[in-house]
Amino acid sequence: TSNVLAGFGTTIFEVMSKLAIEHQAINLGQGFPDQDGPADIRAVAAREGEEGPNQYPPMMGVPELRQAVAEHDSRFYGLSVNWQTDVLVTSGATESLAASMLGLINPGDEVVLFEPLYDCYLPMIKLAGGIPKFVRLDPPNWEIDESKLRAAFSDKTKLILMNSPMNPTGKVFSREELELIAELAIKHDTYAICDEVYEHIVFGDRKHLSLLTLPGMGERTARIASAGKTFSLTGWKVGYLTATAELTSRIAKAHQFLTFTTAPNLQKAVAYGLAKEDAFYEDLKNSMQSKRDRFRDGLQRIGFTTADCDGTYFINADISSIGFDGTDEEFCRLITTEAGVAAVPFSAFYQSEGARTNFARFCFCKRDEVLDAAIEKLQDFF
Amino acid sequence: TSNVLAGFGTTIFEVMSKLAIEHQAINLGQGFPDQDGPADIRAVAAREGEEGPNQYPPMMGVPELRQAVAEHDSRFYGLSVNWQTDVLVTSGATESLAASMLGLINPGDEVVLFEPLYDCYLPMIKLAGGIPKFVRLDPPNWEIDESKLRAAFSDKTKLILMNSPMNPTGKVFSREELELIAELAIKHDTYAICDEVYEHIVFGDRKHLSLLTLPGMGERTARIASAGKTFSLTGWKVGYLTATAELTSRIAKAHQFLTFTTAPNLQKAVAYGLAKEDAFYEDLKNSMQSKRDRFRDGLQRIGFTTADCDGTYFINADISSIGFDGTDEEFCRLITTEAGVAAVPFSAFYQSEGARTNFARFCFCKRDEVLDAAIEKLQDFF
Ligand SMILES: CSCCC(=O)C(=O)O
Ligand SMILES: CSCCC(=O)C(=O)O
Repeated sequence: TSNVLAGFGTTIFEVMSKLAIEHQAINLGQGFPDQDGPADIRAVAAREGEEGPNQYPPMMGVPELRQAVAEHDSRFYGLSVNWQTDVLVTSGATESLAASMLGLINPGDEVVLFEPLYDCYLPMIKLAGGIPKFVRLDPPNWEIDESKLRAAFSDKTKLILMNSPMNPTGKVFSREELELIAELAIKHDTYAICDEVYEHIVFGDRKHLSLLTLPGMGERTARIASAGKTFSLTGWKVGYLTATAELTSRIAKAHQFLTFTTAPNLQKAVAYGLAKEDAFYEDLKNSMQSKRDRFRDGLQRIGFTTADCDGTYFINADISSIGFDGTDEEFCRLITTEAGVAAVPFSAFYQSEGARTNFARFCFCKRDEVLDAAIEKLQDFF
Repeated sequence: TSNVLAGFGTTIFEVMSKLAIEHQAINLGQGFPDQDGPADIRAVAAREGEEGPNQYPPMMGVPELRQAVAEHDSRFYGLSVNWQTDVLVTSGATESLAASMLGLINPGDEVVLFEPLYDCYLPMIKLAGGIPKFVRLDPPNWEIDESKLRAAFSDKTKLILMNSPMNPTGKVFSREELELIAELAIKHDTYAICDEVYEHIVFGDRKHLSLLTLPGMGERTARIASAGKTFSLTGWKVGYLTATAELTSRIAKAHQFLTFTTAPNLQKAVAYGLAKEDAFYEDLKNSMQSKRDRFRDGLQRIGFTTADCDGTYFINADISSIGFDGTDEEFCRLITTEAGVAAVPFSAFYQSEGARTNFARFCFCKRDEVLDAAIEKLQDFF
């Protein structure tokens, strides 16, 4: 193994999903819905695949999908996007992230990151030779400590990589926070890569604000989103990125050598999906919100304190609040093997030392009866 | 752009395909068939996609496909492959190659490569910090110069990356050549990454021999193949890699952060396809061989000398043989814009200086009438 990767194990999601299957546990670990997205979207993919052609589409993505992404970004964020130059389709948001890191970072460049952080960020930064600068967010509300963020930026900063709505915290960055990030990115003339895959899964009166829309950020920000989360089709691995022509083409230079392109029938079906009327997007949000409420209430009935959750698929339970005094890893293994409910230990999302990690992350994008069954199993166990 | 990628333009295949579309030229540049693979395979994908689930499959690939790859490798190469540990599914062979480079190379490691070389090899090696050591093969028969190959290996060699059957030459490596490569890989204790995507597209009495089958190579070789080429579905981007459990897991460590996984319905359809009876594989070979013959004869009638072609989608015409005295890039632009036939300049496959590049690469995996029309256009023009 390359020395960089030797320091990383198999992704925690895979590890917990395997353990869940072995123990026939309800899998609230890895984040994926247990009901597939709209049948009409899947029907488009089926038809396009049967009719073909199923040959290499353009490296940047099929025109239909690039147009649909441009229209989506205009409709939801008021952005003016040139679909021919400013949109890149990749094999999932994961590939957009990998291509951004490999395409932009030179060895020795510094990268600002918030902790806790999604598990593919750090290995890709390190593979690209980047030096991570962590800024830690603390529960229960995951606010940015301004002085820490200022201190993380330097004249060596190449980019900030962030995620809003944020997995695993469920935090949705506020306008003030995004403005602070923008101020620092502009001041230090850095790029910003913003993973916004949960853009449509935001609760209550919170609204997702795209970093790309902030003054001065259009020229330096790549916004990444995905069909997996927006259409509950995580297996399709269709992601897309919006940025200026220049930034997009830099990232595409890496993309063309990582996968080159993505299945055209899936791309066309996602294009069809993105054009869905507002009611679709409202339903997604409402359905996820009621699942969050249902599951959070269940956790609280058992006695767990939960951290704030304004978006994403995930809610975090404080394991110390019910008197569990082992590590979060021990807790997650225990409930997977003994209670029959799998979760992901929050410590998997930390790299720097001394972080508070007494949380278990639960994924609530499951059918109501599955959520209820999980609560019942946990209740019985504790 | 990262400094490494700044040295690389947009992939030549994309450039020539765009030019072909602009000039409504017959596109014999980028390598893809103009007829999609079997309808029954596409029907399986359609059904699996409609029925679902369309959620994350296992990071290594769906069990059905990993089993099918193991059976395929046993059937065609007599290999004994443990599907659970020795097979990795990726988003195309391109991602297998990228993951192999990022997963195995440390900065400063040397990598032995044959020239001409496929265009994604060098950028990925450089992104991983590897140092390329080129061994040039010359027309018309692209034989290995043993002393050059010996000289390319050193105690810093981490791996040899090769491609057999070889794009763009159409060369199929002989047993003696593979034995020499094996001898050197074993002597210097290196890995070997063998891109074998054209394994089933080999002509006449030549046979594809997998490097993985040679004595001493099982433990150090990763063999990469793809549904794109075997089932004429280049857009699906389903690739697979076979190696020891240890080597596979090293490469999977990079894969999990590049794309994580690939659409499950496409994977299941490819699993179905790989189990096809021998007649399917015979037909593929025979059909491609008759296309090569048809197109080669046409080129020769016009007056072109052609280089040997024992496999792949490609045949190379010597542009000097008809008295053209510009560069191969000029030739390919000229025939695309003026004759209405696109080809790829062979020089795109060279990185080291002073190589002989007076070739145009033509892709012949097209319907007979398309090949005939292309020959007619070229005939009219010259
Ligand atoms: C790559 S599988 C991870 C799914 C996910 O986004 C999560 O569980 O956080
Ligand atoms: C990545 S598109 C390239 C297709 C191909 O293999 C070729 O034309 O050589």
